[in-house]
Amino acid sequence: MLQKYPSSLLENAVNEFARLPGVGRKSALRLALHVLRWTNGEVEAFADAITDMKGNVHYCRVCHNICDAEICNICEDKARDAATVCVVESIKDVMAIENTGQFHGLYHVLGGIISPMDGVGPADLQIDSLVQRAKSSPIKEIILALSTTMEGDTTNFYIFRKLAGIDVKISVIARGISVGDELEYTDEITLGRSILNRTEFNESFKYNS
Amino acid sequence: MLQKYPSSLLENAVNEFARLPGVGRKSALRLALHVLRWTNGEVEAFADAITDMKGNVHYCRVCHNICDAEICNICEDKARDAATVCVVESIKDVMAIENTGQFHGLYHVLGGIISPMDGVGPADLQIDSLVQRAKSSPIKEIILALSTTMEGDTTNFYIFRKLAGIDVKISVIARGISVGDELEYTDEITLGRSILNRTEFNESFKYNS
Repeated sequence: MLQKYPSSLLENAVNEFARLPGVGRKSALRLALHVLRWTNGEVEAFADAITDMKGNVHYCRVCHNICDAEICNICEDKARDAATVCVVESIKDVMAIENTGQFHGLYHVLGGIISPMDGVGPADLQIDSLVQRAKSSPIKEIILALSTTMEGDTTNFYIFRKLAGIDVKISVIARGISVGDELEYTDEITLGRSILNRTEFNESFKYNS
Repeated sequence: MLQKYPSSLLENAVNEFARLPGVGRKSALRLALHVLRWTNGEVEAFADAITDMKGNVHYCRVCHNICDAEICNICEDKARDAATVCVVESIKDVMAIENTGQFHGLYHVLGGIISPMDGVGPADLQIDSLVQRAKSSPIKEIILALSTTMEGDTTNFYIFRKLAGIDVKISVIARGISVGDELEYTDEITLGRSILNRTEFNESFKYNS
């Protein structure tokens, strides 16, 4: 359907909203017209929150989680177990695991998983920094908590090989999560249990066995 | 579910996204993290498009449609039939009717419909300006094209009474649209036909008969 917009300013805003994931042109128009009904202050607060976030947010130097300072709250928390590091794909996964209340160690956010189809290789991820961390800090165990997909398994195996020779136990979260599911949409009970029931990583995990 | 955000800047952005209609906190987080992956330029373009729209958009002095100047393109178009005015609830309805290609007159955007449940009374709508327009310009026919809901019928009837004594034909779009449906989601064929088959308004329309 060819949409003619009565205003180029409206059309611009619709175009921008339509760039958000899951927002089509019809939804984008609805969002733009909704925003038009906000006060000037509300619209400014909305725009400022987004540009502020983009401009001023930090990524933790240690675990690459999002944070407001150089080092994130979790890495700075002396009460947490610095000997256990949970490797996750994204910030959303850190939040999901934190919500289970089952994990008291630190994290390492890869920023994605190896996916040749999407053009994501090992060099695009925080894998080298994980290896450095395993070498230089007193880490006893690394828990791989990636999605149980082909890409997740590939990434697990790649990390496993990279960590070869370093004296650290490598485990994966229990396969209680059904294969093919995304980590962030798993319920808290299943996700929490999969942290508790983690199993030692070995080569048999390579082919989703 | 209590969500703990690793960054207050992220939390702010999530809160702002969650104010959009149809966006829950989980979607808001997804949108915020998606925006974080944009370049600074892209984020600025997004924020600017929204604040620009809010700050600089005009509402047509004649029909109250959204536009970039004092008078909208439709009102300024001399090729259109200025004797026929179609009364709609919102800008989206103007766009929906324009898309049918069946209407060549002008519009009048009420900015809502009478809805005591939502606290919207006649004074909140552009009804007085419609009456002024009917008195002062060469309007021969006013087509009421509001949603076929209780509120739409009430508004139709209110306008019908307000226009009493003014020499103008009042019609409503044909009830080809199923009762209870929203105007903007009607398919173009039905909506176009309902414009062509409009019928003269009389008091029998009051109770959805």
